[in-house]
Amino acid sequence: MTSDGTAGARPPSRLSPDRLVVRYRVRGVDVRQVAEAIRVEQTIEFPYELAPAWIRETIVGRIESIDGDPDDGSVTLSYHPDVVGQEPAQLLNVVWGNVSLFENVRLVDLSLPDSLLRLFPGPRLGVPGLRALLRAPDRPLLATALKPMGTAAADLARMAGILAANGIDLVKDDQGLTDQRWAPWDERVARCAEAVRAASERAGRPSLYLPALNFPGPQLLDRAHRARDLGAGGLLVVPGLVGYDAIRALAGDPDLGLPIMAHPAGAGSGVVNPAQGWRHGLLLGLFARVQGADVCIFPHAGGRFAFSQQVCDDIAAECRRPLPGIAAAWPAPGGGIALERIDDTLAVYGRDVVLLVGGALHRGDLATNAGQLRARVEEWTDPAHSE
Amino acid sequence: MTSDGTAGARPPSRLSPDRLVVRYRVRGVDVRQVAEAIRVEQTIEFPYELAPAWIRETIVGRIESIDGDPDDGSVTLSYHPDVVGQEPAQLLNVVWGNVSLFENVRLVDLSLPDSLLRLFPGPRLGVPGLRALLRAPDRPLLATALKPMGTAAADLARMAGILAANGIDLVKDDQGLTDQRWAPWDERVARCAEAVRAASERAGRPSLYLPALNFPGPQLLDRAHRARDLGAGGLLVVPGLVGYDAIRALAGDPDLGLPIMAHPAGAGSGVVNPAQGWRHGLLLGLFARVQGADVCIFPHAGGRFAFSQQVCDDIAAECRRPLPGIAAAWPAPGGGIALERIDDTLAVYGRDVVLLVGGALHRGDLATNAGQLRARVEEWTDPAHSE
Repeated sequence: MTSDGTAGARPPSRLSPDRLVVRYRVRGVDVRQVAEAIRVEQTIEFPYELAPAWIRETIVGRIESIDGDPDDGSVTLSYHPDVVGQEPAQLLNVVWGNVSLFENVRLVDLSLPDSLLRLFPGPRLGVPGLRALLRAPDRPLLATALKPMGTAAADLARMAGILAANGIDLVKDDQGLTDQRWAPWDERVARCAEAVRAASERAGRPSLYLPALNFPGPQLLDRAHRARDLGAGGLLVVPGLVGYDAIRALAGDPDLGLPIMAHPAGAGSGVVNPAQGWRHGLLLGLFARVQGADVCIFPHAGGRFAFSQQVCDDIAAECRRPLPGIAAAWPAPGGGIALERIDDTLAVYGRDVVLLVGGALHRGDLATNAGQLRARVEEWTDPAHSE
Repeated sequence: MTSDGTAGARPPSRLSPDRLVVRYRVRGVDVRQVAEAIRVEQTIEFPYELAPAWIRETIVGRIESIDGDPDDGSVTLSYHPDVVGQEPAQLLNVVWGNVSLFENVRLVDLSLPDSLLRLFPGPRLGVPGLRALLRAPDRPLLATALKPMGTAAADLARMAGILAANGIDLVKDDQGLTDQRWAPWDERVARCAEAVRAASERAGRPSLYLPALNFPGPQLLDRAHRARDLGAGGLLVVPGLVGYDAIRALAGDPDLGLPIMAHPAGAGSGVVNPAQGWRHGLLLGLFARVQGADVCIFPHAGGRFAFSQQVCDDIAAECRRPLPGIAAAWPAPGGGIALERIDDTLAVYGRDVVLLVGGALHRGDLATNAGQLRARVEEWTDPAHSE
């Protein structure tokens, strides 16, 4: 682990492969005392000495190692997978339930045994599947958001058509577009989907429209099927607003089959406090991906948010970390990518990236900007394009 | 607002009553610059100068006031309610969407206009309704959790019966009990509900059993109805695991009619970082209550978690703050309440409190401890009981 606790090696390999392994960075308090508290708090929440022996041995977490200084170090804990059972929400509870109420404890590593990984679908398409769907075998993908809020559905659809016609692969709703009166959800989804379809057909290259799906849990699957029936090519989900399990429910629906973009709005407090919460990559990369996000959006270093390049690298690495049976997801830096710095951004992330460019496309002519962006990315991928 | 930003006066009354009003504490950065960023980031997320005039005026947030020092102050913003529209998740997005990714910004006040309050059911029973249901016109209520995890369903049911027989009003699952093999959900709910029903009948005073309901959103309502059919008298929901909207969906179900306890597991990063997140009372008190929580659990000062008494007072105050059409909720301090300090705890919270006593009941004889706790609370409420 680096000194700021944002990146970390995987837990020691001597651990039993069938246990859930969690590592926390602990600062300013007695690390061993916190470790003892966590292993009980996250399981039995009961006076340890009063619990039956088998519960103390099997249910309570096991301290695998404690490293660092007595008041500034890390602890690695492991749990029997039956403590989670078959419920995805209980995994979150074991990893980050009551311990989320502790100050100065940060989740820095998480390793799921195969028996728990199986609870999660992972990305339905991921990097290889989305490349095939978009007929983009080797280049970075381009995404943008329909905005600003307040624009009528017909105007958003016109914008969507221009963006698709000029080579933007993924045209998504801004995450704040829901069912407002200026652009009611049904009308917006139908019009934008049709505009993207028509533009794609004319251009002879596929683009997808992804409406925002910030609806209550009980409506989630119905709305997703409705979006697909209206022509949506994917879905935008904001787990910080509707829960990470919403991604899993959508990715796990056998009849839906739409790629999912995960947006970080509302999830910030889970990562931005350096001594508390989750390592950025674990929440915005690994956890979203395991639930089923094909594309994981995060604020790009140098944009409107104070994410460092180290943090962005961490998220991208967790989108790509090899995991048995789980495809790689696309890291999607956004939140203020400048057109004039596209080459720098591509140099950082490489080919397997979705560049989410928003407001910058609207400074000047939208069609021209989108077309030039697409051309630049194609040239970067294969310099022969420019000849 | 006090110097630490945890408590705050309500926004100035000169504000239009039909606008959503939000106040943030901002530290270590230029408050005005952050205010300008937030009002755009939370709405159009688009270059301000490129937006049409009516969108700048109607959709973008309005800065109502900026107070304090240039780099350590607070900003009050207001929004047109149509920016939220009719979707509860979009309220969360406007209040705490992209701004959640900002360091050093804390949500310290939130005021919903009537048009947005109407999106939320509030507590179905709240303080008056739960008093009527439990035939407890004036005393504090008692709650406990079935634990430890690993205990078989039959043994948990035996425990539940003892607790109900000895005067515990609300017998809930520990939040980590889900569908594990030691006590499968259906079996546990059926057995515990029956044990509590039988014990209540024998004792001639009502107690309720509240199973944990940490299921995926699409299953939520079905599982809740199943719990009621199995005899559950209420529901335990953990919004930090399944989303705050789960409470609203359950409280708003017209056929369910069960009281809801909200547990803070998983929600900690939203409140425990002093310069970021939400003021404790707003998230764990007001927001949970507006969604429909009848009882809001939080860690008691002096227990296993580092919550100060000031923070606990804030949560209790937000459970009780007068709101049009929204009943008061019960504050429920827990997480390490000691039996020998019950009088101190009652002195702090008064009569309208649910005391959530867990592990302490198990030190010694469970029936004796529960009975003595009930007797002590009755004596405290009406000293004539002890004569």
